[in-house]
Order: sequence, then structure tokens, then C-alpha cells
Amino acid sequence: MSTRIGIIGYGNLGRGVECSIRQNDDMELVAVFTRRDPATVSILTETATVCHVDDVQNWKDKIDVMILCGGSATDLPEQTPEYAKYFNVVDSFDTHARIPEHFANVDEQAKAGNNVAIISVGWDPGMFSLNRLYANAILPQGSDYTFWGKGVSQGHSDALRRIEGVKNAKQYTIPVDSALEAVRSGSNPELTTRQKHTRECFVVLEEGADAARIENEIKTMPNYFSDYDTTVNFISEEELMANHSGIPHGGFVIRSGATGWENENKQIIEYSLKLDSNPEFTASTLIAYARAAHRLNTEGQNGCKTVFDIAPAYLSAKSGDVLRAEML
Amino acid sequence: MSTRIGIIGYGNLGRGVECSIRQNDDMELVAVFTRRDPATVSILTETATVCHVDDVQNWKDKIDVMILCGGSATDLPEQTPEYAKYFNVVDSFDTHARIPEHFANVDEQAKAGNNVAIISVGWDPGMFSLNRLYANAILPQGSDYTFWGKGVSQGHSDALRRIEGVKNAKQYTIPVDSALEAVRSGSNPELTTRQKHTRECFVVLEEGADAARIENEIKTMPNYFSDYDTTVNFISEEELMANHSGIPHGGFVIRSGATGWENENKQIIEYSLKLDSNPEFTASTLIAYARAAHRLNTEGQNGCKTVFDIAPAYLSAKSGDVLRAEML
Repeated sequence: MSTRIGIIGYGNLGRGVECSIRQNDDMELVAVFTRRDPATVSILTETATVCHVDDVQNWKDKIDVMILCGGSATDLPEQTPEYAKYFNVVDSFDTHARIPEHFANVDEQAKAGNNVAIISVGWDPGMFSLNRLYANAILPQGSDYTFWGKGVSQGHSDALRRIEGVKNAKQYTIPVDSALEAVRSGSNPELTTRQKHTRECFVVLEEGADAARIENEIKTMPNYFSDYDTTVNFISEEELMANHSGIPHGGFVIRSGATGWENENKQIIEYSLKLDSNPEFTASTLIAYARAAHRLNTEGQNGCKTVFDIAPAYLSAKSGDVLRAEML
Repeated sequence: MSTRIGIIGYGNLGRGVECSIRQNDDMELVAVFTRRDPATVSILTETATVCHVDDVQNWKDKIDVMILCGGSATDLPEQTPEYAKYFNVVDSFDTHARIPEHFANVDEQAKAGNNVAIISVGWDPGMFSLNRLYANAILPQGSDYTFWGKGVSQGHSDALRRIEGVKNAKQYTIPVDSALEAVRSGSNPELTTRQKHTRECFVVLEEGADAARIENEIKTMPNYFSDYDTTVNFISEEELMANHSGIPHGGFVIRSGATGWENENKQIIEYSLKLDSNPEFTASTLIAYARAAHRLNTEGQNGCKTVFDIAPAYLSAKSGDVLRAEML
């Protein structure tokens, strides 16, 4: 079964989805929808069309799954319910605290439209969530730890750029090795925010800006930096472009549990990601779940689902027979 | 929903299942079935009964899921199809090459009995298989690596004990650190058997046995040791009991993939286990999948399934609402 894909929103994530489709023989990119003038957007896939997002309803019978590549702050809360009326959809909604509300809104519209919607796909939420669930189900006695990095935090980089006198900046979140090792030892440490992660900033100053004032402003910024050991490096714009233009990320989900009649045996489950490109990895999970959305809808299912509700075999292009023979 | 569990076979795995049930409030151990004289088998759970395995059919209406804790060589190929006629069953069948045949046999009987059977549950096959599937679905371009250990290999320890002059022995499989690091670097190395694992043997000799002959016999044993760098340590029975009586194990599943229009970005997914008790961890996964088997059957499903076919939410005692709010 081949799946015809549409992409709404063509930023880093949308381009990542386009690249992932190219790696999957059963996937075809049909159209990219944009709020910009379509004539100004050039895509990589020669066989696909660029359209204005206002035309999306004309594509109802030509697209099996629409992948929503907007942002979680304002785009997806509106777009996912709206498009779930007309299409099977997959999104990467990542505002953890608002997932229950988003789920309810999307579920109502997906059921009304008899479509399948899969929300909060990616790695956190997404693969990290899955690993928390599996590990907790297997080891009900234990503690969960999540570490992020080493990787670029878009939100923290934006916070740096908003400071007066900062021309450009990148921020890396870095897990503390000694904290990771303590968790892996099974000692179940209680870790403060400061003990788990450090923050490293690379900042390009406007001409004549006061470096000392800016460094102090960064290190004392509440919520973003004041609770962390933060390092600030002032560099040139050229150096920032040359050495810090990637979007790497990753992290660790560890369950430190115990089994036995008296909980006498330690059991450690660890899942980790080391990603050169955060948006391309997220995009690759969106495509795997798009395959599942299409199949589930073809089987007659509808409504909103998350990674928790999808049997793993639905993600693979291979048949059950082949999966059992090759991967089990 | 509470699940009433029966255990068939009361060795290390059966005892592990009993311990896991104690950690799960929605699980109840009803009876343990044995081929031995029930009067000679004492279990830890005061509220459960020990019965002869010949009486198992009398328990059809008192047990929701039967957990089969026999061996894969001769017990499970007969037991799982047999009991799937009468009960929902879960097993840890781990002869990878014979899984398709086992699946077909169990599927036929489970469908005839309108029961759910979940086979090959544990960590390899089991959680390792799941991670291979997820990682391959997300990163279709890439290479898979599985390392085992550090841990006790029962099969290799048995092979040592069969050598003339060996009184007792334990064998540890140890992944080679430099191979693990090469894989984690994303260089996609081609690794020989010898480069991936070493084998460490702790051997207690019979009185008067020829140590040099035995060491040579071990190191040259085909299939088991000749393809590996093997270390042989001769120790006393006391030392073996004091330092090598545990059953630890674990390992690593790594997918080294690439994304991007020209596969230009490396993406590494790693899953690892560090287990003090191999059988208790396997038992804990059996109980999580027993919960799923009971629920799926209550929803009207039947037939044979594997970990690939079970949506993760079925493993947890928590509701979908709670899972989305707490773990997604």
C-alpha cells in the first residue's frame, strides 16, 4: 500500500519530512502547502506541487495523510483540529502540559470527519514518551530520569537573541556526565535542575555592546539560565556560522527499577538519541506514524491517537511475517 | 480490571513472575502448576495454590492468563499451542529461527479456543526486537547492531560443565567497549564475531583434572568459544558460589542511521539494559504483556500475537487519559 503525503508548512520540519519521504519507497510527496506565495517557495521534489494553504480542500481525494509542520505555540492548536476534519493527519505538538486539551479538540474533529489523527509524534513527546511507558509498565518499582542534549535549544537561543546588544546566538543544553553515571549505577539519586544539565551559550555581540553586562544578564535570567551553571562564549558571526549552524540534539530516558520478592535486584533500562539533525529525526518519526495513520484509517478506525495507541507493526512497511522472521 | 494469573513451571522464570505479580496491584497469582509432586513445591505467595499440571483444565474459569515458564527447546513448542486452546497465554519462546513455526502453531489453537496468545515476550526476543522495529521504521537508511552482556550465558555455562573434569562453571559474555564506541560514532563499522564480544569463563575443576587440557578444550570449542577471545579462570567452588551465583545480563541495540536529502546527517538510536536478574526482568515483561492479553481478549480479540502487534498503552495499568497527562 502506497501513501500519498501532503505537507502543511515548509520550514526545517517540512523539509525534513520531504527528505524522509525520499527514503521510503511506499511514500509519495504530492503537495506542499504554504501561507506564502507558492511561486516564492521552491521544494526539492520535482514531482510534487507547491500550493497555497487556502487550496487544501481541493486535495481531499488526492492525499492520504497530511503532515502538519507548524509550531506548537499557535499553529497546531488551530490547524490539527481544522485539517483532521478533512484528512488523516499527523502532528508533532510538543507543549506537554496542553496535550490533553489538544487531544480532545482533535479527537472531536477527526471522529466527525472519519479520519485518523496522530498527535505529539517526534522524540519528546514521542519516542521518549514510549520508552517511559514501556519501562514503567515493565518495572513498576523505580524512578524515571530524562536528560536532554547535547543539543541546541531553540527556545533558549531565542531568549539570548532578545537581549539588547546580542546580534546572534546559539545555546546548547548539556547533560552532566556525573549525574548520568549516578543514575546508571542504580543509586536512584535525587537530582536538582543544576545537577542534571549545564547550559553553554555562543553569543555574537552588536558593535559596541557591553559584554560584561550581557553575560550577567544571561546568567541571571530567570527560568532560562539562573537555575543552571551557564557558560557564555563571545564569538564572531563567522565562527557562529562555521561551527554552530547545525541543529543537533538528543538525550537519555532512563528507568532505574528493582525486581525480586524484596526488590533486591536492580534493573536499568536506558534509551538514548544522538541526532545530527533534530528536525529531520522528528520528521522521520512523523513519516513512520503517517504510514500507521493511513493503514488504521483503511481498516476503518478514526479519532485522535498518540504513539501510545499504535501497535509497532503499523509503523513498518514490512509485513507481519517478514517482521517476525527478521526482527523478532 | 484485575487479572488472575496462573504459572506453569516454577523455575527461575516462574519465581520471577511470582515476584512481578507482587509489584502490580491489578495482578493476582491464583495457582502455580508443576510436573513435580505439588506437595514438594513451596511458593512465596500465601494466597496461591500449587497444583499438578495435569489438573490445569479445572482452572479454566478461575484464571484469566496463563504464563508459560518452560524452556524453549522442548517445553514451549508443545505447551503454548496446547494451553492456548483453553487459556489466554503468554510465553518467552526465544529460539529466533523457529518463531514463524511456533507462531503458526499457537495461532491455530488460540483462534480455535477464542483466546489471545502472546509469544516471544522478554528482552531478546522482546524489548530488543521492539527497538529494532521502531528504529528501522524511523531510520530506513542505516545499520543495526546488537551487543549482549555483560552477562551470564546459560548455554555457554552448560557447554563448560559438559567438559570432562569440570565440576562447575559460569560463562560471561562481554561486549567489546571499542566496538561499542565505533558503532556509537556513526562510522557503521563491519564487525567480526571476535571484534564484538569476548567470553570470560570461571571454572571449578574436579580433583586431579588437567587444567591445561581443559583450558585448551574450552578455547578451541567450535561455535561456542573458538570464534572469540576467551579467558579461562580456574577458581574454587566457594569462590564460584560467593562471586558468581547471580544471573545478570543485558545488552545494547543500536541503530546507526542517516537522514537528509543526501543522507548527510547521522542519527543514532541506542537502547540498553543492565540487569541484575535476567529471569526477573523477563518475568516482568511477561506480566506487562499478560495485562495486554487479558484486555485484548476482553475486547473480543483472539489468535497469536507478538510484541509487534500490541499497542503500548495495553501494557500499562493506567488509563489513556492518565498516560497522556503524565507520560507523553
